[in-house]
Amino acid sequence: MNQKLTATEEILATMSAIGVDPQGGMTRLLFDAYWKEAQETLRVRFEEAGLTATYDAAGNLIGSIAGSEKPEETIMTGSHVDTVRNGGTLDGQYGILAGFLAIQRLIEKHGTPKRSLSVVSFAEEEGSRFPFVFWGSKNLIGSVDRSLLAQVIDQQGIGFPQAMKDAGFDFSAPPSAPRTDIVAFVEAHIEQGAVLEHLEKQVGVVTAITGQKRYNICLTGEANHAGTTPMQMRKDALEGAARIMVALLDEAKRLGDPLVLTFGKLEPKPNIVNVVPGEVNFTVDTRHPDQKALNDFAAYVEATIQSIAGSANLQVSIDNWMDEAPVPMDTALVELFKTSCTELGIDYHVMHSGAGHDSQIMAPCVPTAMLFVPSKKGISHNPAEDTEMEDLLAGIDVLEAALYHLAY
Amino acid sequence: MNQKLTATEEILATMSAIGVDPQGGMTRLLFDAYWKEAQETLRVRFEEAGLTATYDAAGNLIGSIAGSEKPEETIMTGSHVDTVRNGGTLDGQYGILAGFLAIQRLIEKHGTPKRSLSVVSFAEEEGSRFPFVFWGSKNLIGSVDRSLLAQVIDQQGIGFPQAMKDAGFDFSAPPSAPRTDIVAFVEAHIEQGAVLEHLEKQVGVVTAITGQKRYNICLTGEANHAGTTPMQMRKDALEGAARIMVALLDEAKRLGDPLVLTFGKLEPKPNIVNVVPGEVNFTVDTRHPDQKALNDFAAYVEATIQSIAGSANLQVSIDNWMDEAPVPMDTALVELFKTSCTELGIDYHVMHSGAGHDSQIMAPCVPTAMLFVPSKKGISHNPAEDTEMEDLLAGIDVLEAALYHLAY
Repeated sequence: MNQKLTATEEILATMSAIGVDPQGGMTRLLFDAYWKEAQETLRVRFEEAGLTATYDAAGNLIGSIAGSEKPEETIMTGSHVDTVRNGGTLDGQYGILAGFLAIQRLIEKHGTPKRSLSVVSFAEEEGSRFPFVFWGSKNLIGSVDRSLLAQVIDQQGIGFPQAMKDAGFDFSAPPSAPRTDIVAFVEAHIEQGAVLEHLEKQVGVVTAITGQKRYNICLTGEANHAGTTPMQMRKDALEGAARIMVALLDEAKRLGDPLVLTFGKLEPKPNIVNVVPGEVNFTVDTRHPDQKALNDFAAYVEATIQSIAGSANLQVSIDNWMDEAPVPMDTALVELFKTSCTELGIDYHVMHSGAGHDSQIMAPCVPTAMLFVPSKKGISHNPAEDTEMEDLLAGIDVLEAALYHLAY
Repeated sequence: MNQKLTATEEILATMSAIGVDPQGGMTRLLFDAYWKEAQETLRVRFEEAGLTATYDAAGNLIGSIAGSEKPEETIMTGSHVDTVRNGGTLDGQYGILAGFLAIQRLIEKHGTPKRSLSVVSFAEEEGSRFPFVFWGSKNLIGSVDRSLLAQVIDQQGIGFPQAMKDAGFDFSAPPSAPRTDIVAFVEAHIEQGAVLEHLEKQVGVVTAITGQKRYNICLTGEANHAGTTPMQMRKDALEGAARIMVALLDEAKRLGDPLVLTFGKLEPKPNIVNVVPGEVNFTVDTRHPDQKALNDFAAYVEATIQSIAGSANLQVSIDNWMDEAPVPMDTALVELFKTSCTELGIDYHVMHSGAGHDSQIMAPCVPTAMLFVPSKKGISHNPAEDTEMEDLLAGIDVLEAALYHLAY
């Protein structure tokens, strides 16, 4: 790296040194020591930049400058400070730093905004320490269900309340009041896919966070000797699964973007070279940013599985264990991001998000939008997660322009 | 069971009590205590029936009556005394008892045969204790390769020579001379498939033991995020495997019996619901009793895998780790079995064996044939292995008739 670091390079390097995992990448889990160090480092930076920095009762850190004309209306930006285990340095953190750097620049250039401006470092989004996701954003807008959290424990057996206490917070204290002053939330994030890189665009303007349905499918046939069972006497569960996969992938490709369909996990039984598989368990993950399109395809998935299993004389069980609705972004904010890109001469792509983000928690309560910067080779949740510095800077420029429009 | 047992019921019950496994079924492994007890019980029975009973140096037990006219020509029948772990009571054992009972009856009815008659209880066929198969038949005809056996150990760490010593045999002693006096070998066995039951036939006359080829296939694509990777940007190794399976199963079914094709084992990586599989390892097991048909189909399998992997932009490795030639049975003996069935009014089916048997070791050296009796639901290598008593008796009748033709 150049000896003379830019402000972006400097703060990214500083923050990325907090939580380096000896087993690779970065591991910063809710309320652990690295998490605390990261939040505290940000708090000091926020204050040095002239922001007031406060934690809410959940551990979200918020750096703010009050508006001169409408201080009761807050424009908020930011993302989450936690990571997956052995993750990269940009997932979450980039959105906090981009928001902070943009606000810093705006204050330097234009002074106090008319509306209040805040950058949030959400306590948690990934669900990588406890079996719970979006602790940060759900607390901020008051949609968290705390009922199960007193019981959950992490891999070391530490309960959620104890972990919270270790970080200086009190699970039994009254939660912070839901924020009702936020009039816009904008989040910058890495894409975690390869679409922008493929299209050679610097910024993605997100119109919706995809809906998704996940299934566990179990096909039951009959395990038989691979040598002594003629083909027409078999009830081959793996053959059934293969025919289902091919039929559904063909249909998904025919319907085309933005529909995706993934068979990620598949386990035949008994899984032995010379035995016809008598049972196969496999998963279906299908996503579409439009609710009707998702429902229609899911119905086709279920009907096709039933039909092919029936023809193959297999028994089938279909368990739809996840069903998340698509979350559309605010139209006006989407337009603002597009305009901002155009004004700056930055080549952008209008797209949906195929992964989940804090914005999907915020969007039902406040006008929300997201912008993406490219992920090299689409890699994330991995030490190899990376983005070109010029793309990181382009994202900050667009965020700054949008925040200027909203707050000044 | 009826109080008044038939001879067949009595000896089957006696022998099936030796090696009962507390975890289910029967476990009689080469040279273990149950194995020894079974061989010794047979030895006493053979002698009580007026046969001379001797072990060869490998642990094969042979009960014989010398021929009155051509004592130097032996007609041999029998099968193996060992089982798989938690196996049934008929696989192997039925062939020994059928041969012994048939010879007993022949002597009772017709006295001394013109040719010598022998029943063999082969020491081992299943490979269930040591990583080695056909120890019994290979020793009998002198085709065993002993070079690796001094090193192999069982699950308890006991070496082959020690196990042999524990049973009263000496690995370092000179092996018995290969038998050159056998002019015909006939083996009765359960089918281990459901063809006879399906066709409602009591006896199968085997024309060949199938040839088989087994492969390990590895397809390598790219693991990607199931939400953020559009369909056209994926290199989905499991999709490739599914397309290969469907294409090859369709062709196998089009070609029809007796070709069989099995994808028994399949393991995607990383095998996670929301990750596109970047790698899949799977097995191919294909069998045909005709060498040219097997070779032709195997060439089609390999070409199709290459072609589909290429179209899907996947890397592929194809490892053909097993390649066993089909073994035809002796035509004259096959005709003899057919004639014997017809004479007895027993409904038979001409078929191949889809599984391996001692007969495939014998056949290259001596005229050999097999007959099958039905397996209920095709089940074997399992405690539920079973055959109707009337079918067991029908098999013995056919064997007796054939041995009469050969030896009297």
